[in-house]
Amino acid sequence: MKYICSACGKEVETSTRKAKCDCGGLWKLNYKAPMFDLASVDTKTWSIFRYRSFMPLEDDAWKDISLGEGLTPVVPFDEDLYLKMDYFMPTLSFKDRGAAVLVAHCKSIGVTSVVQDSSGNAGNSVAAYCAKAGIECEIFVPEGTSPKKIDMIKSHGASVTVVEGSRDHCAEVCRAKVDTEGKYYANHVYNPYFYEGTKTYIYEIYEQLGRIPANIFIPLGNGTLFIGVVKALEELLESGIISSMPNIVGIQSENCNPFVKALERGEKLPAKVEVKPTMAEGIAIGVPMRGEEILQYVYKYNIKLIMAPEDKILEARSILAKKGVYCEHTTAANYAAYVKYCELYGKTPDSIIPMCGAGLKSDH
Amino acid sequence: MKYICSACGKEVETSTRKAKCDCGGLWKLNYKAPMFDLASVDTKTWSIFRYRSFMPLEDDAWKDISLGEGLTPVVPFDEDLYLKMDYFMPTLSFKDRGAAVLVAHCKSIGVTSVVQDSSGNAGNSVAAYCAKAGIECEIFVPEGTSPKKIDMIKSHGASVTVVEGSRDHCAEVCRAKVDTEGKYYANHVYNPYFYEGTKTYIYEIYEQLGRIPANIFIPLGNGTLFIGVVKALEELLESGIISSMPNIVGIQSENCNPFVKALERGEKLPAKVEVKPTMAEGIAIGVPMRGEEILQYVYKYNIKLIMAPEDKILEARSILAKKGVYCEHTTAANYAAYVKYCELYGKTPDSIIPMCGAGLKSDH
Repeated sequence: MKYICSACGKEVETSTRKAKCDCGGLWKLNYKAPMFDLASVDTKTWSIFRYRSFMPLEDDAWKDISLGEGLTPVVPFDEDLYLKMDYFMPTLSFKDRGAAVLVAHCKSIGVTSVVQDSSGNAGNSVAAYCAKAGIECEIFVPEGTSPKKIDMIKSHGASVTVVEGSRDHCAEVCRAKVDTEGKYYANHVYNPYFYEGTKTYIYEIYEQLGRIPANIFIPLGNGTLFIGVVKALEELLESGIISSMPNIVGIQSENCNPFVKALERGEKLPAKVEVKPTMAEGIAIGVPMRGEEILQYVYKYNIKLIMAPEDKILEARSILAKKGVYCEHTTAANYAAYVKYCELYGKTPDSIIPMCGAGLKSDH
Repeated sequence: MKYICSACGKEVETSTRKAKCDCGGLWKLNYKAPMFDLASVDTKTWSIFRYRSFMPLEDDAWKDISLGEGLTPVVPFDEDLYLKMDYFMPTLSFKDRGAAVLVAHCKSIGVTSVVQDSSGNAGNSVAAYCAKAGIECEIFVPEGTSPKKIDMIKSHGASVTVVEGSRDHCAEVCRAKVDTEGKYYANHVYNPYFYEGTKTYIYEIYEQLGRIPANIFIPLGNGTLFIGVVKALEELLESGIISSMPNIVGIQSENCNPFVKALERGEKLPAKVEVKPTMAEGIAIGVPMRGEEILQYVYKYNIKLIMAPEDKILEARSILAKKGVYCEHTTAANYAAYVKYCELYGKTPDSIIPMCGAGLKSDH
């Protein structure tokens, strides 16, 4: 299996420890999944790894890594909208889809020690899977990260390094450690295996509903779910499972919208934006590393973008809770954005949004 | 469908609003499930309601109530032990199995307003399902309940009444409201429909593994999971799916052990015990209302009881977290008790314990 550099096109074995190409470009997998077919789904396996025929796994390492992630239910919310309950997960967020595959890859290629920078769900998830895999893990978090989040990461045996300064600086310090100490960068944005895990979001919807809804709303910060979703839909399209792409809608924060701005201007790269505080902190990514790749998808598939109105996020969270679903603030933003979309474009039946993170995760 | 009084044998329609028989006895369902058969499982339904052929549901109310509860994975922990990841649930605890069925029943018989006493997962779960069902809900909690727990219950639109005094007094105040105001008592111990939901714990294990493990460890406080598990195993036995009962082990707290004491003395009723503080607060029930029924099962099926060593609960929680599973303290007690059982009786392969509640639930 090979990586191909998204910038210079150079190919290297996926067993490389390098986080990116020497030219600075991020890796993409040079992998084409076989034609999708429900008959190839291993229905005896009750996790995302039932779809392993469509993932570039090297061996059976996943068997020792899986914590039973995925197979989250699709629940009707009202006559127009489905919720995919993606916080019914080992670490209570959808990130487990990606982390499980990423860490299985680490195990397969013999990685024994990883680093990751994240103050949120991705760090928590990578720490948990590294614990299961017996891989040493160090998580870099920016100052101000809540002690409870740090405790939870530490509970998994990971070490936590608090870095003064911004979230971006925290990432730089972590990446420096990758360069200077040869640590493996188990990062949800850099590592292409992560997206092989988030593909299963779409596989599951197809297996569960027997079809793909007309409107797929996906949060869009770094694009960890977004990229997996588009890849999986491309696979279903190529396999003849769907005859055209559904209407994909990317959800950004009103207070951090580099893709919205780029699309408005018809630009190929995410716009430089001022990042203002937002309750949708999980998608508040000012400089998305795979921005160019994401915008290519946006233009290719005529993907719409919508902003979650900041002043409607708390209300959205309350509406969801009053129908039994207690979710993170960033997750509530998905619903706020869907409602906004309906206001702008009219009633939008046959839509689905992900419930990405459990409410307790943003309560401390 | 009829209830039968467990004390005097009187029968009443299950549409009754009475929480118990006039004689004081608790209701049992006069219901015998059809022979269990995987062919009768509706595999298109991705929730516990795929097993509705084996539940006494009146109608299709469940369709509007389900939040996608159940179908939690079974994950190998080591060569001897499986974990059933029962916190991958709408409200992050196994209680959703029971609450979903109980509230579906409420909806079916036209209940519009319920009360429940619980400072923990059951109250949270009933509040969430009532929200989904559009049923008014009031939860009584004892003083000292954390503000965050109260906020979470309120988020579902339920009202919360804080009662001064003990947990038992809180229940009395709630039950008085049932008697004086005719409110429906949506209680996980009193209401027999709750156990029809917890039966699915076993159905799922059977569907997922294709067999029932040799040793089934189940927490035993009020017995909400325990009773459902034994009922389901009885059904599998009668259906010829299993040829004998597995080794069932009930888990009590060292600091609150009315069943352990009763069994030691060969008594039919739970022993009067002093309830000392324990980290396994979820099973610290001094006076289990269905104690006699539970002890009948214990004697009938030669069920063993084991106490979770108090001083090993934190260590157990840490061991689980260091393999990726971050659970409640009460849940960690299950593992501590399993380890203790192995110390007492030797290596116990082919065992399964439930991971009942997510770690964040006991962190505040």
